[in-house]
Order: sequence, then structure tokens, then C-alpha cells
Amino acid sequence: MHAKGRLVGVGTGPGDPELLTLKAVRALAKADVVAHFSKRGSNGNARAIVGAHLRPACIELPLVYPVTTEIDKDHNDYRSAIAYFYEESVHKVAEHLEAGRMVAVLSEGDPLFYGSYMHLHVRLADRYPTEVIPGVTAMSGCWSQAGLPIVQGDDVLSVLPGTMSEFELTRRLADTDAAVIMKVGRNLPKIRRALEATGKLARAVYVERGTMANTASMPLADKADDDAPYFSIVLVAGWAGRP
Amino acid sequence: MHAKGRLVGVGTGPGDPELLTLKAVRALAKADVVAHFSKRGSNGNARAIVGAHLRPACIELPLVYPVTTEIDKDHNDYRSAIAYFYEESVHKVAEHLEAGRMVAVLSEGDPLFYGSYMHLHVRLADRYPTEVIPGVTAMSGCWSQAGLPIVQGDDVLSVLPGTMSEFELTRRLADTDAAVIMKVGRNLPKIRRALEATGKLARAVYVERGTMANTASMPLADKADDDAPYFSIVLVAGWAGRP
Ligand SMILES: C[S@@+](CC[C@H](N)C(=O)[O-])C[C@H]1O[C@@H](n2cnc3c(N)ncnc32)[C@H](O)[C@@H]1O
Ligand SMILES: C[S@@+](CC[C@H](N)C(=O)[O-])C[C@H]1O[C@@H](n2cnc3c(N)ncnc32)[C@H](O)[C@@H]1O
Repeated sequence: MHAKGRLVGVGTGPGDPELLTLKAVRALAKADVVAHFSKRGSNGNARAIVGAHLRPACIELPLVYPVTTEIDKDHNDYRSAIAYFYEESVHKVAEHLEAGRMVAVLSEGDPLFYGSYMHLHVRLADRYPTEVIPGVTAMSGCWSQAGLPIVQGDDVLSVLPGTMSEFELTRRLADTDAAVIMKVGRNLPKIRRALEATGKLARAVYVERGTMANTASMPLADKADDDAPYFSIVLVAGWAGRP
Repeated sequence: MHAKGRLVGVGTGPGDPELLTLKAVRALAKADVVAHFSKRGSNGNARAIVGAHLRPACIELPLVYPVTTEIDKDHNDYRSAIAYFYEESVHKVAEHLEAGRMVAVLSEGDPLFYGSYMHLHVRLADRYPTEVIPGVTAMSGCWSQAGLPIVQGDDVLSVLPGTMSEFELTRRLADTDAAVIMKVGRNLPKIRRALEATGKLARAVYVERGTMANTASMPLADKADDDAPYFSIVLVAGWAGRP
């Protein structure tokens, strides 16, 4: 009988492979199995980031989402398809762990910050030795690239998913010093209206594919509403009363 | 005449030197000058983290805060002492930049996320070539170490400084899915009351010196109110409706 394997959630940072941590690089160099979540037809950003650091002999385990868009989330069919997918993924990973292998699960940015890895974590961490290696988040990569000091002193930061209702988004933007809006994509027109309504549009910065080779960033006011990619974010800096 | 130097804000991550990014390590190996903010009588966490990566020949530039505690922030004397300190620090860094040197300014965690580096950044970035290297934040280090999935899906995350009034803290804790409370220290009793009032105390996790050798973490309910160190944080995970 083998000893049980080890599960490691590995944060890969937002895109630039240089933003991998030393700890992530060392874990990848040891991993027997490298798993990553992806949408059908794309190999996933996290897998691209770590390309140079995998062992030639490592086993790749892609976990491919059964659905390609993020609509109809509240529908029961969607929820049960996703739940089934996570159970199936847990099963695939657990087989390797039972065989005594170290399984690294890649996660773009930081694993436990809106990352799919956490769905494996909550189902496996009490059954196998588990470690989570934090990563640079997309928001840190984006505000650093933009040179935008996001919060200081007693500022409050609200991290808001662009999927929220316009009412909620507006209410929360009105009640914060700084804001990060994730999951922009098709929500951009709604996000713009909420920022406009709260007098924050002029200060908002849009960043797409932050820290990647083909990144772009600009004041949100200068950005057209039509084509925000999946990897895009909106930032509003706090920091009113700086010394 | 020399060419102008280069300013680089370097995020060092929260404590574990393995959480430095490859990019930070490469920048440190090239820096002519390494500056870091510290409180009187302590060399600073960021400086300790990078110890193994500095060039032997690099010039060290400690920038020592004129005040040791964080009280009386609204007093005019405090504000002018701090403003003077930042101007003086800018002057010291600018001298090296004028001499054509690359100056790395260390920042614990991520530089533009409540970091002192930003006070230099806003005063120097339009005068010299400047780059910001993001880092793993303290909160990422802490929730990873605790194995705590902090947000998923449409969760809202509020990052709150423990310095806020009890009323504000309570109001904001009542109105968020997940929360990170920074600057805990002497604010711990107030933070506990605000969590209690919003029914979130049972879910709150306390982490001190996250990712450092002498770290400790526990449910906040099990932690005494008396001795939270400067490097401590409180986390409340969102994630109510997980699939
Ligand atoms: C499922 S979340 C993953 C977040 C990630 N775990 C992190 O730590 O930042 C995906 C969202 O992150 C943002 N995002 C991720 N990478 C990005 C990048 N390189 N540039 C801009 N936004 C990014 C986008 O808003 C996207 O909708
Ligand atoms: C001035 S802020 C600096 C934040 C840092 N720039 C970052 O990216 O996280 C200092 C606060 O960060 C938190 N902090 C920093 N390092 C920490 C650690 N290793 N463990 C727990 N909390 C930490 C504490 O709440 C502390 O009061």
C-alpha cells in the first residue's frame, strides 16, 4: 500500500510568469500530477503561466467545465451539472492522491480568492494532507501595472463582482472609498452606469489581461462598452486624504 | 551627466521568503540601492524577508518613521511630522535616482495595498522611470495558511481597517458576505464586539504573523483580547451558497 499523496493548491499569479512565487516554482518542480480547470476549447491561463516549470514526466490532468458561458446560474440544471462536475473532478484528483502522488492544482491569481481550486479544497482537505500556496491576485497585478495606489490609511476597499444587480453595485459603490470590480466582460455597460451614478466614473481605471503580453489599460471613460474580455477588471482608488 | 535612475516598488509578500516572486528576486539582484520603511528600533519585516537576495554591494537606505505608535492620527503635529518625513524620504531616494541608480523600495505584502511605498510613488513616479512589482498580500497569505476559501461566485469582500469606529465596523460587517479586518492590534476588543453584534464571531478566524516562522492562527472566539501583535488580521469567509 502506498502512503497517501498530497494536495497542493498553487496560485500562479495573474499572467506574467515572473509573478510566480519561489514556493510555487518549487512545488511545480516536484508535482507528480498537475491539474487545472479550463473552459472547453481553451487550455486555461494558469496552465500557460507555468509552462516553463513543469517536470517533463508530470501527468497533466485538465478539468474541463461542462458549460462555456456564465449565464443562467440560478437554473437548477446548471447547478446540478456544476455540482456533478466538481464531484467528478474530486474523484479524478483523489485517485492520484490514493496512489501516493503529489497533485498540484493550478489556480490563476490566488487559489482561495474566487478560484475554482476551492471547490476541490473543501471536498478533499480533510481527507489528504493539503497545502495552499497563495499567489499574486489579478487585482494586485492590475493596480501595480496601472501604478494606482488603491488604498491607504483607513480606506475601505470593496471587492464587487460585476455580475451583481445594477442597484446593488450602485449602492455599494456609493458606500466605499476604493473598489475593485471583477468579472467585467459583458457587465461593462452596467458597471459604467453604476460608476456614473455615484460620481466615480472619472476616477475609474479599466485593465484587461493585466500583466500579460497583450495587456491594455485606460481610464474607463475612454473605453468602449462593446468588447471587454473575460480577463478584465475595473479599479477605483481610495486615498482621498493623503499626507 | 548620468542617465536618470529607476524606481522600483518591490512587494515582498507577507513573511515567508519563499513567497517572493521571481520578478522581485530578479529586481533585488540588480538593485543598486535597497530602501525600506521601518519603525524606530525594528529593522522592518520586508527587509528581513529579502535578506538572502540582496547584492553584497548594494547600498541600504532605511527610512525610519518619526513616530512609533499609530495614535493621534488626526492631530496636526502628527500630520505635519509625517508629511515632512515623506518629503525627506523622497529627497533621499531622488538623490540616488539622480545619480543614475536603480532604487528598490521594499514593501511588505503588496506595495500599493496599504503600503508606505505609495507615498514615494505618488511623489516620484512622474519624474523617474518607475515600476511596481506586485506581491502576495498579507490577507492572501493568511487565508491560504488557514485553508479558508474567502470568496467565490458573486460574494462581496470588504477590506476594513480595524481603526474604524465600532459603529462603522458593525454597519459594514452587517452588509458584506466576506470580510478582512486589517490593523487589528489594540483594536481587537472593538472588532470582536462588532463581529458579535453582526452574528459573525463564530465564523471569524484570527491569524497573527501569517506565513512567518512564529505564526499562530485560531478561531477568533478562542483568542484572548489582550495581546494581538501588529502583524495580525481577522478573516470572515463568504461562500454561503456553494455548489
Ligand atoms: C474567477 S476570478 C479569478 C480571480 C483570481 N483567483 C485572483 O486571485 O485574482 C476571474 C476574474 O478575475 C479577473 N482577472 C483575472 N485575471 C485577470 C487579469 N490578468 N487581468 C484582469 N483581470 C483579471 C477578471 O475580472 C475575471 O473575471
Ligand atoms: C500597513 S498594512 C500593510 C499591508 C500589506 N502591504 C499587504 O499587502 O498586505 C499592515 C497590516 O497588514 C496586516 N499584516 C501584514 N502582514 C501580516 C502578516 N504576516 N500576518 C497577519 N497580518 C499581517 C496587519 O493587519 C497589519 O496591521
